[in-house]
Amino acid sequence: MPSIIIKNILVDNKRQDIYVKDNVIAKIGDCPEQRAETVIDGSRMAAIPGFVNMHTHAGMTLFRGMGEDMPLAQWLGEIWKAEAHLDDELVYWGTRLACLEMIHTGTTMFNDMYWRIPLAAKAVRESGIRATLCYTLLDGGDPVKQKVQREECGQMYFQSKNWGPRVKFGTAIHAHYTVSDDNMLWAADFARRNGTILHTHIAETEMEERQHMEKYGMSTTRRLYNMGILGENTVAAHVVWPDAEDIRLLGEKKVTAVHNINSNLKLSSGYRFPYNELRDAGVNVTAGTDGCGSSNNLDMLEALKTSAIVQKAWRGVPTAMPLDELLAMGTVNGARALGVNAGEIKEGALADICLVDMNNTFFAPDYNFRSNLVYSAHSSCIDTVICDGRILMQGGKVEGEQEILDEFSRQIERFRGLIGHLV
Amino acid sequence: MPSIIIKNILVDNKRQDIYVKDNVIAKIGDCPEQRAETVIDGSRMAAIPGFVNMHTHAGMTLFRGMGEDMPLAQWLGEIWKAEAHLDDELVYWGTRLACLEMIHTGTTMFNDMYWRIPLAAKAVRESGIRATLCYTLLDGGDPVKQKVQREECGQMYFQSKNWGPRVKFGTAIHAHYTVSDDNMLWAADFARRNGTILHTHIAETEMEERQHMEKYGMSTTRRLYNMGILGENTVAAHVVWPDAEDIRLLGEKKVTAVHNINSNLKLSSGYRFPYNELRDAGVNVTAGTDGCGSSNNLDMLEALKTSAIVQKAWRGVPTAMPLDELLAMGTVNGARALGVNAGEIKEGALADICLVDMNNTFFAPDYNFRSNLVYSAHSSCIDTVICDGRILMQGGKVEGEQEILDEFSRQIERFRGLIGHLV
Repeated sequence: MPSIIIKNILVDNKRQDIYVKDNVIAKIGDCPEQRAETVIDGSRMAAIPGFVNMHTHAGMTLFRGMGEDMPLAQWLGEIWKAEAHLDDELVYWGTRLACLEMIHTGTTMFNDMYWRIPLAAKAVRESGIRATLCYTLLDGGDPVKQKVQREECGQMYFQSKNWGPRVKFGTAIHAHYTVSDDNMLWAADFARRNGTILHTHIAETEMEERQHMEKYGMSTTRRLYNMGILGENTVAAHVVWPDAEDIRLLGEKKVTAVHNINSNLKLSSGYRFPYNELRDAGVNVTAGTDGCGSSNNLDMLEALKTSAIVQKAWRGVPTAMPLDELLAMGTVNGARALGVNAGEIKEGALADICLVDMNNTFFAPDYNFRSNLVYSAHSSCIDTVICDGRILMQGGKVEGEQEILDEFSRQIERFRGLIGHLV
Repeated sequence: MPSIIIKNILVDNKRQDIYVKDNVIAKIGDCPEQRAETVIDGSRMAAIPGFVNMHTHAGMTLFRGMGEDMPLAQWLGEIWKAEAHLDDELVYWGTRLACLEMIHTGTTMFNDMYWRIPLAAKAVRESGIRATLCYTLLDGGDPVKQKVQREECGQMYFQSKNWGPRVKFGTAIHAHYTVSDDNMLWAADFARRNGTILHTHIAETEMEERQHMEKYGMSTTRRLYNMGILGENTVAAHVVWPDAEDIRLLGEKKVTAVHNINSNLKLSSGYRFPYNELRDAGVNVTAGTDGCGSSNNLDMLEALKTSAIVQKAWRGVPTAMPLDELLAMGTVNGARALGVNAGEIKEGALADICLVDMNNTFFAPDYNFRSNLVYSAHSSCIDTVICDGRILMQGGKVEGEQEILDEFSRQIERFRGLIGHLV
């Protein structure tokens, strides 16, 4: 791998050089003595860690814009009807397009819950970024599916050894209301035995919590806790409707929660994400975009801005969710949950770096870089993306992107043919 | 002015040509017979009207990022201390930078409330976009200021005849709590007599309404209505806290309301903007960004997305604020309020047009252009901006922009010197 020196770049409010050797940030500071095959002039740029998108369904780029401004049940019906027509090629190209969008918007690692994960693994490997791809249990209580899915999960875990160093296997329980108790217990045990994360949806909507309370006389979090499912490897998406006791239990188990603001707002799931309470209870709070079916893009910087301003609004406290905590939610907290030494610009960390172009109005004046990045700029300020020591984008251009756009478009024509009247 | 043909561009879900002659959209449809000095290939693009930002303080780009994550009173203190050091050059360059940012983000017209408007007028004229620049009364009850400001308002209105066809004069009452009743009445009369808009802040915060109720025993809207100030020329910014009776009165008077979502969220002013109620009462509902001091950028597309998803969230209704109404809020509703025949792509309208580059992931799949524009893309998709028949940006490049960025940066160094410890 060619070594890289980024000269005179803004890191931690200082102009420094960054030296990348192999796939690691080898040195930060003055690097006149280092020689590198690639030299980047950073003098109008700043370095930030690549974003970590902690909850998405990457292949759902295929559904972006399908059925807007519809009631939730009708929208879900449309999506499910269309999803029945997915095949390998569609998932592969849907994920390729997702990875391309993530590179453009500065995301170098994501945590995914979707179907046909070997195809997604191929797409991620080829894109150059990192992912944890979760095999998703969703049996609807059907004993045949229960068995088939356990076997398939085991087989895919075995296959995942060949996915290469950037792509990890994860175990997912789609949700407590779509997976049998038996398989939830099995999945938790499988994840623990094999050292994978356990990815699931918890407390996304008020209705979900109300129905659960009626059926079981307790909250979803309480039941999952009692079943022994929650642990430090649990990645709980949404967590919009936990009560105070749920928050305490999530903290006790050191669960990772993922805030998916755009999806929660757009689907009217809720907006009072209890950030302060989760953080103070010891929960590892991270951020995600959810899939393009519900939140329409994979842009982490946008998700972070919206998270912060909505948190300030519903609390009535303009100091809520301050910039340092917000950026940690979008980077290092997620990397830690996925067990990857990234998400920070520091010596010894993996070289997952975005270079931000500050030569535009959004970064003027330059009083406060982080404020300009989050509150003023858009992800279009990401000029260069380095992942695992390799340059994936420079000057806003990704090698081969036109071919991906063109082939995706051909696949969509085919998909339209399969799903007929739907779009 | 060179005539323009945009060939084969997406307009209203059809591929058509647009012919611009002088400063007007002369024809939409097949235009093989038209010859034009400039021909633009629109085959990977869509045409949308330029956005109309209905409430901002353009010169406040100077304050972007100053004092983040602070309580409101402390933040306002910082801003006001710094604002005392403004001079002509700072306002001119602050507005130049603002106009540059508006062009990049597809805004071709804005309604402004700030100081030293002749300098702002020069900046707008040179930028090529349109504005209504409001002389702002803010007397704090001081009889000397009352008199001086009336005279200055009259003089500037007189001068405004020389501002050229794209820049209009407006009258502004900063707010009912900063302007004497006498001057509010004078301003309303002045605006009516001279056919200008009357721009003001109404019901921005809960505290403002509570204090008003304590002092006057009625809401701000009720008092302004009783004083005869409200009318079809009134542009009321924020309007976050009107009650049902206020909404009825605003509708009766056909007032224009401006939703400033990012500012309202970030300053914790409130998030329950009563969109449906205002619209149904007959209020002309529009959108704005507010100034960069509070909402950090001038990006209308971002403001529209956030408006829609927050509206869906707080109402718990995913069909709230649908795309067609949302886009009208950001374009034609504002143009109508400012008395300009723009904000729509139609024959006979002024040629204020943005060309959207769809050759990127955000517009794939192409099921729903408007959904992709608002919910998926960012303003970086704006490739070309035409205002008043003149091309101001093409391929994302604005002529002379580096010079503006460089001079703004020099002015900021000077400003830092003036305001000392503040930033």
